[in-house]
Amino acid sequence: MVAMNDERSPRSGIAPEEALRRVRIVLCRPSHPGNIGSAARAMKNMGLAELWLVEPKRFPEPEAEWLASGALDVVRSARVCARLTDALGECVAAYAISARPREWSLEVLSARDAAGEVLRDAASGPVAVVFGTENAGLTNEELLACQRLVHIPANPAYSSLNLAQAVLVLSYELRLAAALGEVRAPAELPTATAADLEGLFAHLEQASLESGFLDPKHPGRLHERWRRLFARARLEREEVNILRGLLKALAQQRARSQ
Amino acid sequence: MVAMNDERSPRSGIAPEEALRRVRIVLCRPSHPGNIGSAARAMKNMGLAELWLVEPKRFPEPEAEWLASGALDVVRSARVCARLTDALGECVAAYAISARPREWSLEVLSARDAAGEVLRDAASGPVAVVFGTENAGLTNEELLACQRLVHIPANPAYSSLNLAQAVLVLSYELRLAAALGEVRAPAELPTATAADLEGLFAHLEQASLESGFLDPKHPGRLHERWRRLFARARLEREEVNILRGLLKALAQQRARSQ
Repeated sequence: MVAMNDERSPRSGIAPEEALRRVRIVLCRPSHPGNIGSAARAMKNMGLAELWLVEPKRFPEPEAEWLASGALDVVRSARVCARLTDALGECVAAYAISARPREWSLEVLSARDAAGEVLRDAASGPVAVVFGTENAGLTNEELLACQRLVHIPANPAYSSLNLAQAVLVLSYELRLAAALGEVRAPAELPTATAADLEGLFAHLEQASLESGFLDPKHPGRLHERWRRLFARARLEREEVNILRGLLKALAQQRARSQ
Repeated sequence: MVAMNDERSPRSGIAPEEALRRVRIVLCRPSHPGNIGSAARAMKNMGLAELWLVEPKRFPEPEAEWLASGALDVVRSARVCARLTDALGECVAAYAISARPREWSLEVLSARDAAGEVLRDAASGPVAVVFGTENAGLTNEELLACQRLVHIPANPAYSSLNLAQAVLVLSYELRLAAALGEVRAPAELPTATAADLEGLFAHLEQASLESGFLDPKHPGRLHERWRRLFARARLEREEVNILRGLLKALAQQRARSQ
Protein backbone atom coordinates (compact mmCIF):
# COMPACT_ATOMS: atom_id res chain seq x y z
CA MET A 1 0.00 0.00 0.00
CA VAL A 2 1.28 3.41 -0.88
CA ALA A 3 0.73 6.27 1.49
CA MET A 4 -0.98 9.11 -0.23
CA ASN A 5 0.20 12.21 1.54
CA ASP A 6 3.53 12.86 -0.02
CA GLU A 7 4.32 9.58 -1.69
CA ARG A 8 5.33 10.23 -5.28
CA SER A 9 4.83 7.79 -8.07
CA PRO A 10 8.39 7.04 -9.13
CA ARG A 11 7.55 7.06 -12.79
CA SER A 12 5.33 10.08 -13.01
CA GLY A 13 6.79 12.35 -10.41
CA ILE A 14 3.29 13.22 -9.24
CA ALA A 15 1.21 11.73 -6.49
CA PRO A 16 -0.90 8.78 -7.68
CA GLU A 17 -4.16 10.44 -6.67
CA GLU A 18 -3.18 13.46 -8.73
CA ALA A 19 -2.37 11.25 -11.71
CA LEU A 20 -5.81 9.64 -11.50
CA ARG A 21 -7.45 13.05 -11.41
CA ARG A 22 -5.69 13.97 -14.63
CA VAL A 23 -7.34 11.10 -16.50
CA ARG A 24 -10.50 12.11 -18.30
CA ILE A 25 -13.03 9.52 -19.31
CA VAL A 26 -14.59 10.52 -22.64
CA LEU A 27 -17.84 8.87 -23.77
CA CYS A 28 -18.63 9.39 -27.45
CA ARG A 29 -22.31 9.63 -28.36
CA PRO A 30 -23.66 7.48 -25.50
CA SER A 31 -27.29 6.46 -26.12
CA HIS A 32 -28.45 5.61 -22.61
CA PRO A 33 -28.29 8.12 -19.77
CA GLY A 34 -28.22 5.19 -17.34
CA ASN A 35 -24.85 4.20 -18.75
CA ILE A 36 -23.54 7.69 -18.14
CA GLY A 37 -24.58 7.47 -14.50
CA SER A 38 -23.16 3.97 -14.07
CA ALA A 39 -19.91 5.03 -15.70
CA ALA A 40 -19.67 7.98 -13.30
CA ARG A 41 -20.15 5.67 -10.34
CA ALA A 42 -17.46 3.29 -11.61
CA MET A 43 -15.08 6.22 -12.07
CA LYS A 44 -15.61 7.55 -8.58
CA ASN A 45 -15.29 4.05 -7.12
CA MET A 46 -11.76 4.04 -8.48
CA GLY A 47 -10.83 7.65 -7.75
CA LEU A 48 -11.40 9.22 -11.18
CA ALA A 49 -13.42 12.40 -11.43
CA GLU A 50 -13.34 13.96 -14.87
CA LEU A 51 -16.11 12.91 -17.26
CA TRP A 52 -16.57 14.29 -20.76
CA LEU A 53 -19.54 13.54 -22.99
CA VAL A 54 -19.33 13.99 -26.76
CA GLU A 55 -22.77 14.53 -28.25
CA PRO A 56 -24.74 12.46 -25.73
CA LYS A 57 -28.16 11.43 -27.01
CA ARG A 58 -29.97 12.37 -23.78
CA PHE A 59 -28.22 14.39 -21.14
CA PRO A 60 -28.81 15.64 -18.52
CA GLU A 61 -31.47 13.13 -17.51
CA PRO A 62 -32.74 11.93 -14.13
CA GLU A 63 -31.81 8.36 -15.03
CA ALA A 64 -28.15 9.28 -15.20
CA GLU A 65 -28.35 10.68 -11.68
CA TRP A 66 -30.22 7.67 -10.29
CA LEU A 67 -27.58 5.28 -11.53
CA ALA A 68 -24.72 7.50 -10.45
CA SER A 69 -25.73 6.79 -6.86
CA GLY A 70 -22.97 8.35 -4.74
CA ALA A 71 -21.22 9.85 -7.77
CA LEU A 72 -23.68 12.66 -8.47
CA ASP A 73 -20.79 15.12 -8.34
CA VAL A 74 -19.10 13.37 -11.27
CA VAL A 75 -22.27 13.43 -13.37
CA ARG A 76 -23.09 17.02 -12.54
CA SER A 77 -19.63 18.27 -13.36
CA ALA A 78 -19.50 16.33 -16.65
CA ARG A 79 -18.56 18.46 -19.63
CA VAL A 80 -20.56 18.16 -22.81
CA CYS A 81 -19.06 18.92 -26.19
CA ALA A 82 -19.92 18.52 -29.85
CA ARG A 83 -16.89 16.70 -31.20
CA LEU A 84 -14.26 14.36 -29.82
CA THR A 85 -11.49 16.76 -30.76
CA ASP A 86 -13.05 19.33 -28.39
CA ALA A 87 -12.64 16.89 -25.52
CA LEU A 88 -9.06 16.07 -26.43
CA GLY A 89 -7.87 19.67 -26.79
CA GLU A 90 -5.16 20.02 -24.15
CA CYS A 91 -4.64 16.30 -23.56
CA VAL A 92 -1.10 14.99 -23.89
CA ALA A 93 -2.37 11.58 -25.00
CA ALA A 94 -5.60 9.85 -25.99
CA TYR A 95 -6.26 6.14 -25.67
CA ALA A 96 -9.16 4.63 -27.62
CA ILE A 97 -10.96 1.64 -26.14
CA SER A 98 -12.08 -0.96 -28.62
CA ALA A 99 -13.59 -4.40 -28.21
CA ARG A 100 -12.46 -5.21 -31.72
CA PRO A 101 -8.88 -4.16 -32.37
CA ARG A 102 -8.75 -3.45 -36.09
CA GLU A 103 -6.17 -5.15 -38.19
CA TRP A 104 -4.73 -1.93 -39.42
CA SER A 105 -4.01 1.02 -37.25
CA LEU A 106 -2.61 1.85 -33.91
CA GLU A 107 -0.53 -0.06 -31.46
CA VAL A 108 -2.86 -2.21 -29.38
CA LEU A 109 -2.37 -2.48 -25.62
CA SER A 110 -4.23 -4.59 -23.11
CA ALA A 111 -6.19 -2.64 -20.50
CA ARG A 112 -3.63 -3.66 -17.89
CA ASP A 113 -0.62 -2.50 -19.88
CA ALA A 114 -2.40 0.65 -20.97
CA ALA A 115 -3.07 1.69 -17.39
CA GLY A 116 0.62 2.13 -16.62
CA GLU A 117 1.15 4.07 -19.83
CA VAL A 118 -1.79 6.36 -19.13
CA LEU A 119 -0.41 7.23 -15.71
CA ARG A 120 3.03 7.86 -17.14
CA ASP A 121 1.52 10.24 -19.67
CA ALA A 122 -0.48 11.92 -16.92
CA ALA A 123 2.76 13.22 -15.44
CA SER A 124 2.87 15.57 -18.41
CA GLY A 125 -0.76 16.68 -18.48
CA PRO A 126 -4.35 15.52 -18.95
CA VAL A 127 -4.87 12.16 -20.65
CA ALA A 128 -8.06 11.00 -22.34
CA VAL A 129 -9.46 7.48 -22.31
CA VAL A 130 -12.06 7.37 -25.05
CA PHE A 131 -15.08 5.05 -25.33
CA GLY A 132 -17.42 4.66 -28.29
CA THR A 133 -21.16 4.07 -28.49
CA GLU A 134 -22.90 1.12 -26.88
CA ASN A 135 -23.58 -0.50 -30.24
CA ALA A 136 -21.00 0.57 -32.75
CA GLY A 137 -17.98 1.67 -30.77
CA LEU A 138 -15.80 4.42 -32.19
CA THR A 139 -15.81 5.63 -35.76
CA ASN A 140 -12.60 5.46 -37.72
CA GLU A 141 -12.31 9.22 -37.49
CA GLU A 142 -12.54 9.04 -33.70
CA LEU A 143 -9.99 6.24 -33.55
CA LEU A 144 -7.60 8.31 -35.59
CA ALA A 145 -7.94 11.19 -33.15
CA CYS A 146 -6.34 8.95 -30.54
CA GLN A 147 -2.76 7.75 -30.34
CA ARG A 148 -3.17 4.29 -28.96
CA LEU A 149 -5.73 1.53 -29.00
CA VAL A 150 -6.69 -0.42 -25.90
CA HIS A 151 -8.27 -3.83 -25.85
CA ILE A 152 -10.16 -5.33 -22.93
CA PRO A 153 -9.52 -9.07 -22.84
CA ALA A 154 -12.85 -10.89 -23.03
CA ASN A 155 -14.56 -14.07 -24.07
CA PRO A 156 -14.23 -14.23 -27.87
CA ALA A 157 -17.70 -15.76 -28.01
CA TYR A 158 -19.23 -12.69 -26.32
CA SER A 159 -16.84 -9.81 -26.03
CA SER A 160 -19.33 -6.93 -25.99
CA LEU A 161 -19.06 -5.28 -22.58
CA ASN A 162 -21.65 -2.86 -21.33
CA LEU A 163 -20.26 0.69 -21.65
CA ALA A 164 -20.10 1.34 -17.90
CA GLN A 165 -18.48 -2.05 -17.36
CA ALA A 166 -15.77 -1.15 -19.84
CA VAL A 167 -15.25 2.16 -18.01
CA LEU A 168 -14.93 0.21 -14.77
CA VAL A 169 -12.26 -2.13 -16.13
CA LEU A 170 -10.09 0.77 -17.22
CA SER A 171 -10.70 2.76 -14.04
CA TYR A 172 -9.92 -0.29 -11.92
CA GLU A 173 -6.69 -0.98 -13.79
CA LEU A 174 -5.72 2.67 -13.44
CA ARG A 175 -6.30 2.56 -9.71
CA LEU A 176 -4.18 -0.56 -9.31
CA ALA A 177 -1.48 0.84 -11.54
CA ALA A 178 -1.42 3.91 -9.33
CA ALA A 179 -0.68 1.50 -6.49
CA LEU A 180 -3.55 2.80 -4.46
CA GLY A 181 -5.13 -0.58 -3.89
CA GLU A 182 -5.64 -1.05 -0.23
CA VAL A 183 -5.86 -4.51 1.15
CA ARG A 184 -6.04 -4.87 4.84
CA ALA A 185 -3.59 -7.41 6.19
CA PRO A 186 -5.03 -10.25 8.20
CA ALA A 187 -5.19 -9.50 11.89
CA GLU A 188 -1.71 -9.39 13.35
CA LEU A 189 -1.90 -11.72 16.31
CA PRO A 190 1.10 -13.45 17.88
CA THR A 191 2.14 -16.46 15.87
CA ALA A 192 2.69 -19.77 17.60
CA THR A 193 6.33 -20.62 18.22
CA ALA A 194 7.93 -23.94 17.40
CA ALA A 195 7.71 -24.81 21.09
CA ASP A 196 3.99 -24.01 21.13
CA LEU A 197 3.51 -26.32 18.17
CA GLU A 198 5.51 -29.13 19.72
CA GLY A 199 3.33 -28.83 22.81
CA LEU A 200 0.26 -29.13 20.65
CA PHE A 201 1.58 -32.14 18.75
CA ALA A 202 2.48 -33.92 21.99
CA HIS A 203 -0.98 -33.17 23.32
CA LEU A 204 -2.66 -34.50 20.17
CA GLU A 205 -0.52 -37.64 20.34
CA GLN A 206 -1.46 -38.21 23.97
CA ALA A 207 -5.18 -37.71 23.31
CA SER A 208 -5.00 -40.00 20.28
CA LEU A 209 -3.42 -42.76 22.34
CA GLU A 210 -5.59 -42.39 25.44
CA SER A 211 -8.79 -42.37 23.45
CA GLY A 212 -7.77 -45.42 21.44
CA PHE A 213 -7.91 -43.41 18.21
CA LEU A 214 -4.26 -44.23 17.60
CA ASP A 215 -3.12 -47.82 17.89
CA PRO A 216 0.52 -47.59 19.06
CA LYS A 217 1.29 -50.79 17.19
CA HIS A 218 0.07 -49.27 13.93
CA PRO A 219 0.59 -45.55 14.18
CA GLY A 220 0.50 -45.04 10.40
CA ARG A 221 1.37 -41.48 9.45
CA LEU A 222 -0.93 -39.74 11.87
CA HIS A 223 1.94 -37.87 13.47
CA GLU A 224 3.00 -36.45 10.11
CA ARG A 225 -0.54 -35.59 9.17
CA TRP A 226 -1.00 -33.41 12.22
CA ARG A 227 2.21 -31.57 11.47
CA ARG A 228 1.36 -31.09 7.86
CA LEU A 229 -2.14 -29.81 8.62
CA PHE A 230 -1.07 -27.33 11.28
CA ALA A 231 1.99 -26.20 9.36
CA ARG A 232 -0.33 -25.15 6.59
CA ALA A 233 -2.62 -23.40 9.03
CA ARG A 234 0.18 -21.14 10.34
CA LEU A 235 -1.36 -21.13 13.81
CA GLU A 236 -1.57 -18.19 16.12
CA ARG A 237 -0.56 -18.76 19.72
CA GLU A 238 -4.13 -18.32 20.93
CA GLU A 239 -5.34 -20.95 18.49
CA VAL A 240 -2.88 -23.44 19.95
CA ASN A 241 -4.31 -22.61 23.37
CA ILE A 242 -7.85 -23.16 22.13
CA LEU A 243 -7.03 -26.52 20.58
CA ARG A 244 -5.19 -27.65 23.71
CA GLY A 245 -7.97 -26.30 25.91
CA LEU A 246 -10.52 -28.47 24.14
CA LEU A 247 -8.31 -31.56 24.39
CA LYS A 248 -7.82 -30.87 28.09
CA ALA A 249 -11.52 -30.39 28.73
CA LEU A 250 -12.32 -33.65 26.95
CA ALA A 251 -9.73 -35.49 29.05
CA GLN A 252 -10.93 -33.93 32.30
CA GLN A 253 -14.51 -34.87 31.66
CA ARG A 254 -13.34 -38.38 31.00
CA ALA A 255 -11.45 -38.39 34.29
CA ARG A 256 -14.43 -37.01 36.19
CA SER A 257 -16.72 -39.67 34.81
CA GLN A 258 -14.37 -42.54 35.66
CA MET B 1 -3.53 -19.45 -23.44
CA VAL B 2 -2.99 -23.14 -23.19
CA ALA B 3 -4.58 -25.51 -25.65
CA MET B 4 -7.77 -27.04 -24.43
CA ASN B 5 -8.04 -30.43 -26.07
CA ASP B 6 -7.01 -33.17 -23.66
CA GLU B 7 -7.69 -35.75 -21.08
CA ARG B 8 -5.62 -34.50 -18.20
CA SER B 9 -6.84 -35.57 -14.80
CA PRO B 10 -8.40 -32.79 -12.77
CA ARG B 11 -5.81 -33.42 -10.11
CA SER B 12 -2.82 -32.87 -12.31
CA GLY B 13 -4.09 -29.82 -14.13
CA ILE B 14 -7.06 -28.57 -16.08
CA ALA B 15 -7.44 -26.24 -19.01
CA PRO B 16 -8.08 -22.60 -18.07
CA GLU B 17 -11.45 -22.46 -19.82
CA GLU B 18 -12.55 -25.48 -17.82
CA ALA B 19 -11.36 -23.84 -14.61
CA LEU B 20 -13.47 -20.75 -15.40
CA ARG B 21 -16.51 -22.94 -15.95
CA ARG B 22 -16.03 -24.43 -12.50
CA VAL B 23 -16.37 -21.05 -10.83
CA ARG B 24 -19.88 -20.34 -9.64
CA ILE B 25 -20.95 -16.80 -8.98
CA VAL B 26 -23.34 -16.76 -6.01
CA LEU B 27 -25.50 -13.68 -5.41
CA CYS B 28 -27.08 -13.58 -1.95
CA ARG B 29 -30.50 -11.97 -1.74
CA PRO B 30 -30.11 -9.57 -4.68
CA SER B 31 -32.82 -6.88 -4.67
CA HIS B 32 -32.78 -5.74 -8.27
CA PRO B 33 -33.37 -8.12 -11.18
CA GLY B 34 -31.46 -5.71 -13.40
CA ASN B 35 -28.33 -6.42 -11.39
CA ILE B 36 -28.82 -10.14 -11.93
CA GLY B 37 -28.96 -9.60 -15.67
CA SER B 38 -25.96 -7.27 -15.70
CA ALA B 39 -23.98 -9.69 -13.58
CA ALA B 40 -24.80 -12.50 -16.01
CA ARG B 41 -23.57 -10.38 -18.91
CA ALA B 42 -20.34 -9.56 -17.08
CA MET B 43 -19.82 -13.25 -16.35
CA LYS B 44 -20.31 -14.31 -19.94
CA ASN B 45 -18.06 -11.50 -21.17
CA MET B 46 -15.29 -13.14 -19.20
CA GLY B 47 -16.13 -16.78 -19.89
CA LEU B 48 -17.99 -17.69 -16.69
CA ALA B 49 -21.31 -19.48 -16.93
CA GLU B 50 -22.61 -20.72 -13.61
CA LEU B 51 -24.85 -18.34 -11.70
CA TRP B 52 -26.52 -19.17 -8.38
CA LEU B 53 -29.08 -16.96 -6.69
CA VAL B 54 -29.80 -17.29 -2.99
CA GLU B 55 -33.26 -16.00 -2.16
CA PRO B 56 -33.48 -13.36 -4.89
CA LYS B 57 -36.13 -10.74 -4.17
CA ARG B 58 -37.56 -10.83 -7.70
CA PHE B 59 -36.58 -13.56 -10.11
CA PRO B 60 -37.25 -14.49 -12.82
CA GLU B 61 -38.15 -11.04 -14.14
CA PRO B 62 -38.08 -9.54 -17.64
CA GLU B 63 -35.69 -6.84 -16.43
CA ALA B 64 -33.02 -9.42 -15.68
CA GLU B 65 -33.28 -10.70 -19.24
CA TRP B 66 -33.17 -7.23 -20.80
CA LEU B 67 -29.95 -6.37 -19.03
CA ALA B 68 -28.39 -9.76 -19.67
CA SER B 69 -28.28 -8.82 -23.35
CA GLY B 70 -26.31 -11.62 -25.02
CA ALA B 71 -26.07 -13.63 -21.79
CA LEU B 72 -29.67 -14.87 -21.67
CA ASP B 73 -28.37 -18.42 -21.39
CA VAL B 74 -26.59 -17.57 -18.14
CA VAL B 75 -29.68 -15.97 -16.62
CA ARG B 76 -31.99 -18.73 -17.73
CA SER B 77 -29.79 -21.48 -16.36
CA ALA B 78 -29.30 -19.68 -13.03
CA ARG B 79 -30.05 -21.86 -10.04
CA VAL B 80 -32.18 -20.48 -7.25
CA CYS B 81 -31.84 -21.75 -3.70
CA ALA B 82 -33.03 -20.84 -0.23
CA ARG B 83 -29.80 -20.67 1.70
CA LEU B 84 -26.17 -19.94 0.94
CA THR B 85 -25.12 -23.35 2.24
CA ASP B 86 -27.28 -24.95 -0.48
CA ALA B 87 -25.21 -23.16 -3.09
CA LEU B 88 -21.91 -24.15 -1.48
CA GLY B 89 -22.63 -27.86 -0.96
CA GLU B 90 -20.06 -29.60 -3.12
CA CYS B 91 -17.74 -26.60 -3.50
CA VAL B 92 -14.11 -27.12 -2.51
CA ALA B 93 -13.76 -23.45 -1.57
CA ALA B 94 -15.90 -20.36 -1.10
CA TYR B 95 -14.61 -16.80 -1.41
CA ALA B 96 -16.69 -13.99 0.09
CA ILE B 97 -16.52 -10.57 -1.52
CA SER B 98 -16.65 -7.69 0.91
CA ALA B 99 -16.26 -3.96 0.45
CA ARG B 100 -15.51 -3.66 4.14
CA PRO B 101 -13.03 -6.22 5.38
CA ARG B 102 -13.83 -6.61 9.05
CA GLU B 103 -11.09 -6.00 11.51
CA TRP B 104 -11.35 -9.46 12.83
CA SER B 105 -11.99 -12.12 10.32
CA LEU B 106 -10.63 -14.38 7.65
CA GLU B 107 -7.55 -13.86 5.58
CA VAL B 108 -8.21 -10.99 3.17
CA LEU B 109 -7.07 -11.19 -0.42
CA SER B 110 -7.20 -8.57 -3.14
CA ALA B 111 -9.38 -9.43 -6.12
CA ARG B 112 -6.24 -9.93 -8.18
CA ASP B 113 -4.56 -12.30 -5.76
CA ALA B 114 -7.82 -14.11 -5.13
CA ALA B 115 -8.29 -14.87 -8.82
CA GLY B 116 -5.20 -17.06 -8.95
CA GLU B 117 -6.22 -18.86 -5.78
CA VAL B 118 -9.75 -19.46 -7.05
CA LEU B 119 -8.42 -21.05 -10.23
CA ARG B 120 -6.02 -23.23 -8.31
CA ASP B 121 -8.89 -24.40 -6.12
CA ALA B 122 -10.98 -25.01 -9.24
CA ALA B 123 -8.51 -27.69 -10.25
CA SER B 124 -9.99 -29.70 -7.36
CA GLY B 125 -13.69 -29.00 -7.94
CA PRO B 126 -16.35 -26.28 -8.02
CA VAL B 127 -15.47 -22.99 -6.34
CA ALA B 128 -17.93 -20.35 -5.18
CA VAL B 129 -17.41 -16.59 -5.34
CA VAL B 130 -20.07 -15.11 -3.08
CA PHE B 131 -21.56 -11.62 -3.24
CA GLY B 132 -23.90 -9.99 -0.71
CA THR B 133 -26.85 -7.67 -1.16
CA GLU B 134 -26.62 -4.32 -2.93
CA ASN B 135 -27.02 -2.41 0.33
CA ALA B 136 -25.77 -4.47 3.21
CA GLY B 137 -23.37 -7.00 1.72
CA LEU B 138 -23.07 -10.38 3.38
CA THR B 139 -24.27 -11.26 6.85
CA ASN B 140 -21.77 -12.56 9.36
CA GLU B 141 -23.31 -15.99 9.06
CA GLU B 142 -22.79 -15.92 5.31
CA LEU B 143 -19.22 -14.71 5.71
CA LEU B 144 -18.51 -17.56 8.08
CA ALA B 145 -19.80 -20.09 5.55
CA CYS B 146 -16.90 -19.01 3.32
CA GLN B 147 -13.21 -19.69 3.80
CA ARG B 148 -11.63 -16.53 2.45
CA LEU B 149 -12.47 -12.89 2.16
CA VAL B 150 -11.82 -10.85 -0.97
CA HIS B 151 -11.54 -7.11 -1.14
CA ILE B 152 -11.89 -5.05 -4.30
CA PRO B 153 -9.47 -2.14 -4.09
CA ALA B 154 -11.46 1.08 -4.39
CA ASN B 155 -11.55 4.74 -3.52
CA PRO B 156 -11.88 4.89 0.27
CA ALA B 157 -14.12 7.92 -0.15
CA TYR B 158 -16.62 5.91 -2.21
CA SER B 159 -15.94 2.22 -2.20
CA SER B 160 -19.46 0.93 -2.82
CA LEU B 161 -19.43 -0.77 -6.21
CA ASN B 162 -22.61 -1.70 -8.00
CA LEU B 163 -23.21 -5.44 -7.61
CA ALA B 164 -22.74 -6.27 -11.30
CA GLN B 165 -19.60 -4.11 -11.38
CA ALA B 166 -18.16 -6.12 -8.51
CA VAL B 167 -19.00 -9.33 -10.37
CA LEU B 168 -17.21 -7.95 -13.41
CA VAL B 169 -14.03 -7.14 -11.50
CA LEU B 170 -13.78 -10.66 -10.17
CA SER B 171 -14.72 -12.25 -13.50
CA TYR B 172 -12.19 -10.08 -15.33
CA GLU B 173 -9.42 -10.97 -12.91
CA LEU B 174 -10.34 -14.63 -13.23
CA ARG B 175 -10.13 -14.44 -17.00
CA LEU B 176 -6.71 -12.78 -16.89
CA ALA B 177 -5.46 -15.24 -14.33
CA ALA B 178 -6.74 -18.10 -16.48
CA ALA B 179 -4.91 -16.73 -19.49
CA LEU B 180 -1.64 -17.15 -17.65
CA GLY B 181 -1.54 -20.84 -18.30
CA GLU B 182 -2.64 -24.21 -17.19
CA VAL B 183 -4.15 -24.43 -13.77
CA ARG B 184 -2.63 -26.86 -11.32
CA ALA B 185 -4.01 -28.23 -8.12
CA PRO B 186 -1.86 -27.37 -5.11
CA ALA B 187 -2.77 -30.39 -3.03
CA GLU B 188 -2.22 -34.00 -3.93
CA LEU B 189 -5.26 -35.17 -2.02
CA PRO B 190 -8.96 -34.34 -2.36
CA THR B 191 -9.89 -31.06 -0.78
CA ALA B 192 -12.60 -30.91 1.87
CA THR B 193 -15.91 -29.56 0.61
CA ALA B 194 -17.99 -26.90 2.35
CA ALA B 195 -20.28 -29.68 3.58
CA ASP B 196 -17.28 -31.57 5.04
CA LEU B 197 -16.23 -28.43 6.88
CA GLU B 198 -19.72 -27.79 8.24
CA GLY B 199 -19.71 -31.32 9.60
CA LEU B 200 -16.39 -30.69 11.32
CA PHE B 201 -17.56 -27.40 12.84
CA ALA B 202 -20.74 -29.02 14.18
CA HIS B 203 -18.63 -31.80 15.67
CA LEU B 204 -16.22 -29.35 17.32
CA GLU B 205 -19.14 -27.39 18.73
CA GLN B 206 -20.69 -30.52 20.17
CA ALA B 207 -17.41 -31.68 21.72
CA SER B 208 -16.80 -28.21 23.15
CA LEU B 209 -20.23 -28.15 24.78
CA GLU B 210 -20.23 -31.74 26.06
CA SER B 211 -16.79 -31.41 27.57
CA GLY B 212 -17.65 -28.15 29.28
CA PHE B 213 -14.92 -26.34 27.30
CA LEU B 214 -17.56 -24.04 25.89
CA ASP B 215 -20.00 -22.39 28.27
CA PRO B 216 -23.18 -21.95 26.21
CA LYS B 217 -23.99 -18.83 28.23
CA HIS B 218 -20.67 -17.26 27.28
CA PRO B 219 -19.71 -18.72 23.93
CA GLY B 220 -17.36 -15.85 23.13
CA ARG B 221 -16.07 -16.12 19.59
CA LEU B 222 -15.05 -19.76 19.71
CA HIS B 223 -17.32 -20.60 16.80
CA GLU B 224 -15.62 -18.00 14.64
CA ARG B 225 -12.15 -19.02 15.80
CA TRP B 226 -12.61 -22.58 14.61
CA ARG B 227 -13.79 -21.38 11.24
CA ARG B 228 -10.96 -18.96 10.89
CA LEU B 229 -8.30 -21.48 11.84
CA PHE B 230 -9.53 -24.21 9.52
CA ALA B 231 -10.27 -21.82 6.69
CA ARG B 232 -6.60 -20.90 6.75
CA ALA B 233 -5.57 -24.54 6.90
CA ARG B 234 -7.44 -25.42 3.67
CA LEU B 235 -8.16 -28.92 4.88
CA GLU B 236 -8.05 -32.03 2.85
CA ARG B 237 -11.02 -34.35 3.16
CA GLU B 238 -8.93 -36.98 4.93
CA GLU B 239 -7.78 -34.42 7.48
CA VAL B 240 -11.38 -33.65 8.32
CA ASN B 241 -11.90 -37.37 8.83
CA ILE B 242 -8.86 -37.56 11.12
CA LEU B 243 -9.99 -34.61 13.24
CA ARG B 244 -13.51 -35.98 13.53
CA GLY B 245 -12.15 -39.45 14.22
CA LEU B 246 -10.21 -38.16 17.19
CA LEU B 247 -13.21 -36.25 18.53
CA LYS B 248 -15.35 -39.37 18.16
CA ALA B 249 -12.78 -41.57 19.90
CA LEU B 250 -12.55 -39.13 22.79
CA ALA B 251 -16.34 -39.08 23.14
CA GLN B 252 -16.66 -42.87 22.94
CA GLN B 253 -14.02 -43.42 25.58
CA ARG B 254 -15.94 -41.01 27.77
CA ALA B 255 -19.15 -42.97 27.15
CA ARG B 256 -17.48 -46.28 27.90
CA SER B 257 -16.08 -45.00 31.17
CA GLN B 258 -19.42 -43.64 32.36
